[in-house]
Amino acid sequence: MKRSLRDIRLANRFDVLRQVIASRAVSRQQIVAETGLSLATVSTLVGELLDLGLLEEVGYEGSGGGRPRGLLAVTSGRGVLIGVDVAESYVHVEMFNPKLAALARTEAPLDPDGNSPDHVARQIAAAVRSVLDQAAGDAGTPPQESPSAQVLGVGVSVPGQVGRDGTVSISAPNWDWQDVPLRRLLGQQLHLPIYLDNPLRASTVAELWFGAGRGRRDVVVLTLGTGVGAGLALGGSLYRGATNSAGEWGHTTLVLDGRPCRCGSRGCVEAYVGAPGIVQHLRELAPDSPLLRSGGATETVDALARAAAGGDRVATRVVAEIARYLGMAVAGLVNLVNPQVVVLSGWVAAKLGSALLDAVRGVVERHAPRRPCVRAEIVLCPIAGNPVSLGAATLALEGFLTTIGRRL
Amino acid sequence: MKRSLRDIRLANRFDVLRQVIASRAVSRQQIVAETGLSLATVSTLVGELLDLGLLEEVGYEGSGGGRPRGLLAVTSGRGVLIGVDVAESYVHVEMFNPKLAALARTEAPLDPDGNSPDHVARQIAAAVRSVLDQAAGDAGTPPQESPSAQVLGVGVSVPGQVGRDGTVSISAPNWDWQDVPLRRLLGQQLHLPIYLDNPLRASTVAELWFGAGRGRRDVVVLTLGTGVGAGLALGGSLYRGATNSAGEWGHTTLVLDGRPCRCGSRGCVEAYVGAPGIVQHLRELAPDSPLLRSGGATETVDALARAAAGGDRVATRVVAEIARYLGMAVAGLVNLVNPQVVVLSGWVAAKLGSALLDAVRGVVERHAPRRPCVRAEIVLCPIAGNPVSLGAATLALEGFLTTIGRRL
Repeated sequence: MKRSLRDIRLANRFDVLRQVIASRAVSRQQIVAETGLSLATVSTLVGELLDLGLLEEVGYEGSGGGRPRGLLAVTSGRGVLIGVDVAESYVHVEMFNPKLAALARTEAPLDPDGNSPDHVARQIAAAVRSVLDQAAGDAGTPPQESPSAQVLGVGVSVPGQVGRDGTVSISAPNWDWQDVPLRRLLGQQLHLPIYLDNPLRASTVAELWFGAGRGRRDVVVLTLGTGVGAGLALGGSLYRGATNSAGEWGHTTLVLDGRPCRCGSRGCVEAYVGAPGIVQHLRELAPDSPLLRSGGATETVDALARAAAGGDRVATRVVAEIARYLGMAVAGLVNLVNPQVVVLSGWVAAKLGSALLDAVRGVVERHAPRRPCVRAEIVLCPIAGNPVSLGAATLALEGFLTTIGRRL
Repeated sequence: MKRSLRDIRLANRFDVLRQVIASRAVSRQQIVAETGLSLATVSTLVGELLDLGLLEEVGYEGSGGGRPRGLLAVTSGRGVLIGVDVAESYVHVEMFNPKLAALARTEAPLDPDGNSPDHVARQIAAAVRSVLDQAAGDAGTPPQESPSAQVLGVGVSVPGQVGRDGTVSISAPNWDWQDVPLRRLLGQQLHLPIYLDNPLRASTVAELWFGAGRGRRDVVVLTLGTGVGAGLALGGSLYRGATNSAGEWGHTTLVLDGRPCRCGSRGCVEAYVGAPGIVQHLRELAPDSPLLRSGGATETVDALARAAAGGDRVATRVVAEIARYLGMAVAGLVNLVNPQVVVLSGWVAAKLGSALLDAVRGVVERHAPRRPCVRAEIVLCPIAGNPVSLGAATLALEGFLTTIGRRL
């Protein structure tokens, strides 16, 4: 039950840094106006971030006759953050500066037959080292200055349940992990601070800092892919639940006794709006459709998106059907959580989102509360690039700011 | 986005007062041990509550050789709180001391043909005055000391959507209110501080202070009655959502295209586990059942509960069916919110809860996440008496402590 001033101070520190990151150069007074914090609090927090070398003074602006105001920016070239998106078939690694601008990236396939924890940890570590080497090569860093000495933290998103103790459980085809101590394994490989979480929470933090969640308190981020789930940011920060498992929305029953779901239950949201469920809609409506590709759900969803954009009749009907299921499920979330905004993220949303968006909004409007003030905005993820690796790196930045908090 | 030290301080003040209320007499050191707050913080907060006259020093305990420790208790006879539960057919009013022990109560039918806002406000105000008069009579208060001068606040729960501005919208048979300024109307009648909310949130606050939510951070309280809904306490305090509308869980789709719901949609949770939905299960299974009473859903649910307790075959099947629907819906909540505990409250839970509980737990266990650490406890509301009027009075106490915070 312990609530602490430290939590608030940390949340305020995140707010201040977000404001500076969002601007080329910003004064303390502008931060006060944007965050609602007092000038004294902002000055203290800015002082800490200056001492850490994360911020620097970059000049002055006039203040309408008064004393010129100092302008702040994030220090470039001081520390880097690594964001890792581990999926079932690949590992995507990006290196960012403290403004979370990407400096380097790599993507490597994950050996599909080698999903032992040690083997996966070695593959992740190799990809991280490859990005560090690439950056060192670019910068012409002398060999005695290890690039890893610059790393403030490595955020790693893995597609499963991540315990607060850094263990991971994943149930997937070819992948069955129970309470694997992945944080420890990666730490042994990399000797860097590791911050482990899953794509639901990584995407949510990315939206809070850089996307549709900026400046909002109550935000739902839906990850739509092969699996589906929700990330919740409530009261301005990530909500994790009692055991860091909140957001398993994909296994909410939408059609009692409906389609079998890979979780063993029936009629789950995921069985209708996850990529395999989308393929199934198409197959049921048009079993001989040329849109059904042999390469798997990704190719079929791609083909479906292109066909829907071109006005194809079957594709349009499939999209309408998916929008109905997704809309009803989103209406339930809006009723329960009453968020300001619902963000559709994940690769299925990236491909099909613009085709789905208006219809989903219509279904939600008909089925969520009738009072206009309760309506939530529904938007597509506005983040260019991979929001999961960005969010993982942001979790590492939050983690770094937290450890600093212990010292300050 | 403004988070403030005041929010934390207020939450801590609530925690300290909860600890004192829970004990006959408690030392500051015991409060430290229970809340995880520092001794300095506890001492400051206790000092404020002593200054307000809400707490008093009641003696000393030994401390194993050290200086004797002062013991604290809630002051009796200093201020009262009123809790009002307005339902579609009655208004129930209780008066409490600051320990939230009931001192007096009254219940009056609400005129079913007079649901104009002014008329309802007058009936609520009359019931509140009746309890105050009753208490004044008991205590033999001299007429010049108005009992209402003792009232710290009046908490009123109404069965609808309550806006942050104190307006109420209710859609019910014979009752159609849109943005009625009830807080203002009641204030004009009573000239007392009015704290308005709905039964979902009143019940949740009651559980947090006095029930199954004590000492828990993430709690879901389900109100099962004619309508159904959820109250969420996340991170140790009530979660309200963007527009104070969180918790409208009754209109989550559980059976796509299923039974019509009174909200205009189909297949909502409420259509299956609300009292009219329960009667419908019975009617579908046994159209000529003698358990179907002409007096309405309350009498039928009563008869069903008695028959199920007696092992009646039809009643047992109906209860199993309801448990299946309720269990699937609760599993969805557990997946999404990952709470420590789910509390079944409301009059349907009071009557049928013990018959339903084991079956609901079984369904949730089969359909919520597979990892044991994620499991939530599922319990019946342990509060004796009416949790809604208790919770409404508690909201008034929280409100009083908040206004005090503005002054301190």
